[in-house]
Amino acid sequence: MKSNNVPHRIYLSEDQIPRQWYNLRADMKEQPDPMLNPATMRPVTEADLRPVFCDELAHQELDAVTRYVDIPEEIREFYKMYRPSPLIRAYSLERALGTPAKIYYKFEGNNTSGSHKLNSAVAQAYYAKRQGLRGLTTETGAGQWGTALAEACSYFGLPLTVYMVKVSYNQKPFRKAVIQTFGADVVASPSDTTEAGRRILAADPETGGSLGCAISEAVEKAVSTEGYRYVLGSVLNQVLLHQSVIGLESKTAMEMIGEYPDVIIGCAGGGSNLGGLIAPFMQDKLTGRADPRIVAVEPASCPSLTRGRYAYDFCDTGRITPLARMCTLGCGFIPSANHAGGLRYHGMSPILSKLYHDGYMEAVSVEQTKVFEAAVFFAKQETILPAPESAHAIRAAIDEALRCKETGEEKTILFGLTGTGYFDMTAYSAFHDGAMSDYIPTDADLQKGFDGLPAVPGVR
Amino acid sequence: MKSNNVPHRIYLSEDQIPRQWYNLRADMKEQPDPMLNPATMRPVTEADLRPVFCDELAHQELDAVTRYVDIPEEIREFYKMYRPSPLIRAYSLERALGTPAKIYYKFEGNNTSGSHKLNSAVAQAYYAKRQGLRGLTTETGAGQWGTALAEACSYFGLPLTVYMVKVSYNQKPFRKAVIQTFGADVVASPSDTTEAGRRILAADPETGGSLGCAISEAVEKAVSTEGYRYVLGSVLNQVLLHQSVIGLESKTAMEMIGEYPDVIIGCAGGGSNLGGLIAPFMQDKLTGRADPRIVAVEPASCPSLTRGRYAYDFCDTGRITPLARMCTLGCGFIPSANHAGGLRYHGMSPILSKLYHDGYMEAVSVEQTKVFEAAVFFAKQETILPAPESAHAIRAAIDEALRCKETGEEKTILFGLTGTGYFDMTAYSAFHDGAMSDYIPTDADLQKGFDGLPAVPGVR
Repeated sequence: MKSNNVPHRIYLSEDQIPRQWYNLRADMKEQPDPMLNPATMRPVTEADLRPVFCDELAHQELDAVTRYVDIPEEIREFYKMYRPSPLIRAYSLERALGTPAKIYYKFEGNNTSGSHKLNSAVAQAYYAKRQGLRGLTTETGAGQWGTALAEACSYFGLPLTVYMVKVSYNQKPFRKAVIQTFGADVVASPSDTTEAGRRILAADPETGGSLGCAISEAVEKAVSTEGYRYVLGSVLNQVLLHQSVIGLESKTAMEMIGEYPDVIIGCAGGGSNLGGLIAPFMQDKLTGRADPRIVAVEPASCPSLTRGRYAYDFCDTGRITPLARMCTLGCGFIPSANHAGGLRYHGMSPILSKLYHDGYMEAVSVEQTKVFEAAVFFAKQETILPAPESAHAIRAAIDEALRCKETGEEKTILFGLTGTGYFDMTAYSAFHDGAMSDYIPTDADLQKGFDGLPAVPGVR
Repeated sequence: MKSNNVPHRIYLSEDQIPRQWYNLRADMKEQPDPMLNPATMRPVTEADLRPVFCDELAHQELDAVTRYVDIPEEIREFYKMYRPSPLIRAYSLERALGTPAKIYYKFEGNNTSGSHKLNSAVAQAYYAKRQGLRGLTTETGAGQWGTALAEACSYFGLPLTVYMVKVSYNQKPFRKAVIQTFGADVVASPSDTTEAGRRILAADPETGGSLGCAISEAVEKAVSTEGYRYVLGSVLNQVLLHQSVIGLESKTAMEMIGEYPDVIIGCAGGGSNLGGLIAPFMQDKLTGRADPRIVAVEPASCPSLTRGRYAYDFCDTGRITPLARMCTLGCGFIPSANHAGGLRYHGMSPILSKLYHDGYMEAVSVEQTKVFEAAVFFAKQETILPAPESAHAIRAAIDEALRCKETGEEKTILFGLTGTGYFDMTAYSAFHDGAMSDYIPTDADLQKGFDGLPAVPGVR
């Protein structure tokens, strides 16, 4: 098929849903540094992880060797309800920009959770169910992960408690209602259901909570409840593994139409979408088969790649999780109230951090008013209302296409459209009303975060 | 393809998007009675309609002869951004119900407007633009139509003013924000921008408005503004014509998998979705090629088919529109605050009313708590969060499938899933909280509406 005959939406057949996830670590010449048990400062073992994660996921987290992991049939059956997701040729956007570039995007918002998060949620719920667990706990900030996991747990008949950051719980009652529709318990965090929550409430009864606090509560609840485990929607290696379906489908669809991207762009908070989207293309890069540019886009207000340190740090603000070596702003760094809640995380997937550190990946940071300008422009052209997180990738893709317009290059651009913005209209309204600010942390702000980094013997 | 090998989601190719809409009237042996000009009590002419509708749409409204109407290429180009919509086999729902029935649904919620309304919105915006009009006006209640039209007008660069029922304007700020994202003006109705609005405000400054009032304002604004016309998202013949894409695609997809529905189920407010979904199947019925059951589902709180009169009535509460003969509860009937705002309309498409009156179609009414039970059950199984309107069809489809379970019949059920419920979480919350009531009008309530029906000489 010639690229000018490409349909607007390229759907794979159901048979083309991947049968295996791709484990990027298997092709990395240099591995990410191991997670450390904070009590011993030694690499964590599966045994260390099993009280927190279910057995199969503890295994996947540490397995850097198995290149392809079979997707259980039950998970593929679930995937068939909303996958393959479409690869979309942005003809209308290209016309509006007047660019010679060809723009493609992989749209992961066509499911009720409204985002790519469901790809890992269903896997994590399935393994928990198969192990005979009695329930799961998790935290949610913006709410996409909480929604996706509630959907997956409902399908497998697994009880779920979601600790939702209190400020979100109060500001996003509709998100809460969707999660409740799928039968999950939603608890405003901090709460009086955990030691951690009670301690924080005692210190500051009026606190709106934080993701770090919600993680602490969810982990405590999981490890202190018989038959429960904790699950997380990003950052972890297992999550990137599951999310590889995004990239695998994208690559197959592009092959069907005779295309290969010159540049691949994804938004990056904890890295779940970016890691999944780029996986098979990064494989090409690591194995010398191709050399596409890979660009991570992060908010200027939370620039863990572009301005962070590559260092060992806690994954949570409460400093109870294992230490991971990653690009981080310091677990004590509190990002400003950027509307892309899903990108407000101090760290970044250790796999992506390593790849970035080793020069396999670029990163740019963008300011949120510029992001919303791109979001509105895109919505008008492509008729999809993007999530603020996804709009970071749109911003960078538009900028790339505009550079092509200047140079005349007919580049093929692929970006990830992770989800829809139906629950983010407060942010859109702030943009329409001119009430959106662009806070960029000063070097002094960042230094405070770096000062709180834990000391790890033997690591610079 | 055998029906047990049917994929979960059946997508047609882009080439299979219909090239022509199907005009059901061309195959009706008995035509619906003509619309009447209330000033003359004579059938309306295209000339009568042209001050209100653009020329092509005035023509389509009255054209009962042309069986197939070419879809302009510009509209097909837009359709390609979100069509063909998937026909989905509800395997998970079937399993959960334990029914031998095969359940299919045509899902029209996979576009930003979140509903099927976009199919007609793009057509109406296109014809207005082609005529060189300067702008459009419309009204919106639940907000699906306002969103869809804003999206279409934005694409064609056509200014739009949406009169949004004030109570919705205040209760659904996020709907308003989406419409504004697409660049449309949103005015809370009643407003001081029209005579009609000022009159109503003078009488009752605290009124929350009504769809009838919003229609009056939108029509007044259109006819009093140079180069403006008014557009409507349901009830009209032209809207059913455009919505025939739903049924045409459904029929093609079912043919591809060797299926034909025994029963076709759709929710019915003004009739836009139902009329579109059933069009080619009703053609089979009218021409004797097949005889599927066709079932309209309406709220028990607003039962225009099951308990209404087949009579001439105004299309609006303000009694300024032409008279249409239809199943109606009387233009003065004020439906209770059912959460399915899109089904709160006193009348029903004249085409569908005639078909129902002549025995080609069945109708059932359902209570809203039963509807939300079905919605939540469906969401958990099929992972799509349905709009309350769509959930009426789900309720009836589930009831049909449960009857098949009793009788052992392997019926093939097709229903229309018109949209998603992302902006209806207040309703879901009310359901979760047990705060939802089932109001059914008494015969005396209905009589009041019937008493207000206009007298039309020569019609019983």
